[in-house]
This record gives sequence, C-alpha cells and structure tokens, in this order.
Amino acid sequence: MTFDSYFRKAKERLRDDLDRFLSAKRKDMTRVEPWGRDVLRRLGTFTRKGKMIRGGLVMLGCEMAGGRITPAVVRAGTASELIQSGLLIHDDIMDRDAERRGAPSIHEQYARLADGPARPDAGHFGMSMAVCAGDIAIFLAFEAMAGLPGPAKRAAAVQKLFAAEFGLVGLGQMLDIRAGTSRLSLSEREVLDIYRYKTARYSFSLPLAAGWILGGGRDPVLPAIQRLGEDLGLVFQIKDDELGLFGNARTTGKPVGSDIRQGKRTLYSLALLDRAAGPARDRLEAVFGRAEATDADIRFVRDLADRLGVREDVQRIMARFGRRAASGVRSLPLAERHLETLQSLLEYVLSRRS
Amino acid sequence: MTFDSYFRKAKERLRDDLDRFLSAKRKDMTRVEPWGRDVLRRLGTFTRKGKMIRGGLVMLGCEMAGGRITPAVVRAGTASELIQSGLLIHDDIMDRDAERRGAPSIHEQYARLADGPARPDAGHFGMSMAVCAGDIAIFLAFEAMAGLPGPAKRAAAVQKLFAAEFGLVGLGQMLDIRAGTSRLSLSEREVLDIYRYKTARYSFSLPLAAGWILGGGRDPVLPAIQRLGEDLGLVFQIKDDELGLFGNARTTGKPVGSDIRQGKRTLYSLALLDRAAGPARDRLEAVFGRAEATDADIRFVRDLADRLGVREDVQRIMARFGRRAASGVRSLPLAERHLETLQSLLEYVLSRRS
Repeated sequence: MTFDSYFRKAKERLRDDLDRFLSAKRKDMTRVEPWGRDVLRRLGTFTRKGKMIRGGLVMLGCEMAGGRITPAVVRAGTASELIQSGLLIHDDIMDRDAERRGAPSIHEQYARLADGPARPDAGHFGMSMAVCAGDIAIFLAFEAMAGLPGPAKRAAAVQKLFAAEFGLVGLGQMLDIRAGTSRLSLSEREVLDIYRYKTARYSFSLPLAAGWILGGGRDPVLPAIQRLGEDLGLVFQIKDDELGLFGNARTTGKPVGSDIRQGKRTLYSLALLDRAAGPARDRLEAVFGRAEATDADIRFVRDLADRLGVREDVQRIMARFGRRAASGVRSLPLAERHLETLQSLLEYVLSRRS
Repeated sequence: MTFDSYFRKAKERLRDDLDRFLSAKRKDMTRVEPWGRDVLRRLGTFTRKGKMIRGGLVMLGCEMAGGRITPAVVRAGTASELIQSGLLIHDDIMDRDAERRGAPSIHEQYARLADGPARPDAGHFGMSMAVCAGDIAIFLAFEAMAGLPGPAKRAAAVQKLFAAEFGLVGLGQMLDIRAGTSRLSLSEREVLDIYRYKTARYSFSLPLAAGWILGGGRDPVLPAIQRLGEDLGLVFQIKDDELGLFGNARTTGKPVGSDIRQGKRTLYSLALLDRAAGPARDRLEAVFGRAEATDADIRFVRDLADRLGVREDVQRIMARFGRRAASGVRSLPLAERHLETLQSLLEYVLSRRS
C-alpha cells in the first residue's frame, strides 16, 4: 500500500480516537472552567490539523510485526500525537513563532485573550497559558498511554520507551536553543546530532518501535527498525529546513525564512556562513538571527544558497540518508506489502511540499 | 509516629531512590551532551532540596492500606517529586520568580549562562532552557512510573490517576494566571477552587490515594482519603500564603511579598481589596501587582492585613479546614499509629514556618 493511502486511512482512525479520548475527558476537565473546555477545544483543533505521521507509524510498526491494529495500538498513536502537540506548543514559545499549522500558534492565541491589566503584558500572559496548555497535552498523552489495554508487559515497555525518548528530545531542544544563540561554530556532525535528537528519533524510530513492540514483534529486529527511523527522520528534518527556506508559506503553514530570522543552526546556515564572502557575507551576517529581516532579505539568502551551491549540497546530504534508509528498508525481514509502504514513506519524506 | 520522624525517614529513602534513578539515567542522558549531565545535576539538586512531602505521602498512603513499602512504592514517591520539580520550574517562569528553595530558580540559573548573542536576550534564553528542563523532569517522572514493578493493574491505575490529576493542575494554574492578570473580582469560593486544583489535590489527595492503591487498599475508602487530602492541602496552601506575606525569606527560601508584587489572588488580597479604604486603599492598589514594589510597600501591606483583621480572618478560614481535616482523620478506618501520623501531619501543615 502506498504511504498516501496508508496514512490517510490511519489518520481517519487516529482522528476518531482522538475525538473519543478528548470527549471522554470532558467531564473531568470541565470541573475547572472555563479553561477545561477551552484547552480541550484548542488541543483538539491543533492536533487534528497535524499530518499525524507519528500516530500512523505506530500503527504501521504494529502491522510490520504481524500484529492486529487493536484499540490499544490506535490509542498509543493518539498519545504520540498529543505529546507532539505539547512539544510544538512549547517549541513555538521558545522560537517566538506566531504561526503554526496555518493558524496563530497557541501562545499567540492566548496572548490575544489578554485584557485588562494583562494587556500590556500580553506576551507573557500568552506564554504562561501556553506553557500550561503544552503541559496538559503531555499529561493527556501519558494518561492515554497509562490505560492501554492488552499485555501489561508490552504496554509498560512502550510507556518507558516513550518517556525516555522524550527526555532526549528535551535535551536535543536545549542543544538547538544554545546553538542558535551562541557564536559556537558547529560541525555538520553536530547539526545532524541536533536533528537526530530533536526530531528524527522521536518522530520515526520511536513510533515504529512502539508499534513493533505492541504488535508483538521480535526484539532482535528493533535496532534495525530504530536505525531506519533515524535515517527517515534525518531526511524529514533536512526537507523541513528546505521547505522553511524554499517552500511556500501557504502549503507549509509556517512563515518562510523563520529559521534564518531566528538564527537557527541548520545545514543551510552552516554552509552559507562557511562559504559566503565579501559584501554577500556582510549582508548574510546582518540578516541571520534578525527577527526584523524583511522578505527581500530572506529572498537574498535563498538566492545566495542557490548561487553558492549550498542548496545542491544539502540535497546531496539528504539523498545520502535517503539511500541509507532505502537499504535499511530492504534489509528488514518483512512482508512485501510493508516494504512497499516503507519505500513509499521514504519517497514522501524525500519529496513532500508541506 | 509523628509527622516529623515519619517524613524524615521517608525523605532519606526518597533521596536514595532519586539518586539511584538519576544515576541509572546517566548513561542514556549523557548521549546528548553537555545538557544531559547538566540537567540531571540541576534536577537532582533542585529535587533533593524539597521537603518531599508528596513522596512521603505515597509511602504513608501505602502503609495506611496495610501495604509494605516496596521499591515500587518508593519509586512512585520519587516520580511525584520529579513531576513536582517540573511544575515548579514552569511555575517560576510564569511568576517570574528569581528564587526557589533558597537558590536561583532554574530559569534564572540558565539566564546566567547566556553569553555571546544570547546575552541581550538572557531572559528568553533562560526561559526556553527552563521550559525544556521542566519538560524533562516530567518525562523522567513518567519514566519512573512506567517501570513500576508489582501488580500491573495497580501500577496502571496509579499512572492514570497521576496523569489525570496533573492535567487538572495545569488548568488550576491557568485559572491562577488569569485571575492574577484581570480585573475580575473573585469570590472566596473561586479562590479556594484555585487552591484546590493548583495545589491541594495533587499535593495531598493524589499521593495518599496513589499509595493507598499501591498498598492494595480497598476502593470504597478512597473518596474519604481524597477528601481529607483536599482539606490538608487547603490548609497547606493558605499557610503558604501566610508565610509568603508574614514569613521569613531565610526559612521559606522565597522572597517575602512576591504574591503581592505579582498581584496574585489569594485570600489575603481578596479581603484586603475588599476592606481597605481611603489613602490606604490607594496605596494598596498602587502596590498590588507591581513588580517594583519596595520592601517598605510590602511591610505596609502586611501591617494593613493585621490592622484590618484580614490576617485573623484568613487564619479562621484555615482553622475551619483544619477542623474538617481533623474529623476526616478520625473517620478513617485505620490503625491507631497511622491516625497519629495523619494527626501530626495536620499539626505540621497548620503550624509550619518554612
């Protein structure tokens, strides 16, 4: 089955399960009004808008292991989407991103609610409310994971795997923050490590491994699945950088050039700062990390990346991980139809536009 | 056994277990350096400095049910201390508290690490790093809870209880933020609701209930335990307000008057704003919610609370919950020695100075 049809179907089941889970929480959460209802609604809308790839990968991992998609498996997928929402909400605060998934980010939504004495301090008010909303999303995710029916040992292993991996995501995020705000020059390897911990492992390795365990898959295959997940995730993240600079804000749902404005260390900025010289370098340094950079500034950086061969070289790195992922897929002892879906997933992450 | 000797012993075991848990995480977390080691160290120091009442209550709840303090029970206590650390770290960001537990708060610690381009933006850098550190504390807590040995059904029930209750804590925190930044005048009942969700339930009801379940206690007794926990927790929070205004910064580890400077809605501010008139009211309104209020301003508010009988009245409310808690203790079907410990715990929360 192609990635597209597999994930479309998976997303339907995940959305239904998310609605069911959040509805079941209504009675408990609306004891604290007005925020109980408010947070459930915002988290529901926010989470439903995601691509839900992580949740779909839990289901795929389970089927790869020969398991049946039980309600517990879908619920684990829902949990990973909720935790993802929580992380994105916190992430947007740190990155000062005002938009996400084609709408105001959650801290921005709350900032707009500030009135009375909170008005002059709307940013802090929005940030505070969004830290809470992100925490609540994380708690909801662990609640969803705590009640997993099915073999208790598998459920416990998956819960542990989740919690441990998200701890590393937090550390990866710290690396990223630090790199974006210091003069340290990073190596390509260090940037790839940020990608690995901040995105690749939890987005691909973790859900595939969780599904594999829930589906009763054999332990010795796990490392190969996790390695494949890392490679897929690295391609995904490098593509993300590309879309952030060369993509279309309307299809990505995020403003173009925000990595540049925030001074993020990406493979692009690394190579650009390495190669640019003369007046181009001066302008690049003036633009990089400047929140007020204009659209013309961003276009300049984009053109520079083209001109200096940076775009091409980054795509070459991405292609390298793509090849590694392709051979990772072929080496897995799986039924032909699962190999096809994984292959199609790889094609998607290599060529997606949103 | 008195509260004091029970909790001193409990704290020793919790500290040992915390050290064991964090040491066991070292290998995994130091894959992402330098932050892995850094976060483990800061979270360890921060958590060890707490009173560890919540962790102790998990153990007490278990013994109340006739259970034995197994490693799983201590580990659940450790988990509640870690999650508490995570919440406090996030809380201090929202309240802009620069001190906690007698040391710089975590966001303040990280702000001091800002250098190079992060320097002018040290506040945002510190906040971002601390959001991550708080998230990591929460993930570590859930990892500790995921691996609980012993009956799987009990462990799952406790995990679910924890995750669900902390969702409500997030909502209580939102209530508190909103109340502190709006002109809404709250009722005493609404302020008590904030206390209930933001502090009382998760700090007392939850750990006692978790311990009770892990100890194999009977379900029909749970509601009475949870009610008792709420009353103990309300006394605890009202005392906290008192210490925040009338206490000694050296023993509490927190600056005096920060609730006033932050414009927090407490039983004190409620009654003060209700009763003050004339020039005293003008000065109160000028001081309330002003981060720059001087120590003399805080002394003025303190004296005003005395003069207008506010201090006495709030103590009366606290005493009312204290009496309710005392009768709650007497109604529980427990061995005499546990009733004694609970009674002694109540005396502690009524009279503590730090």
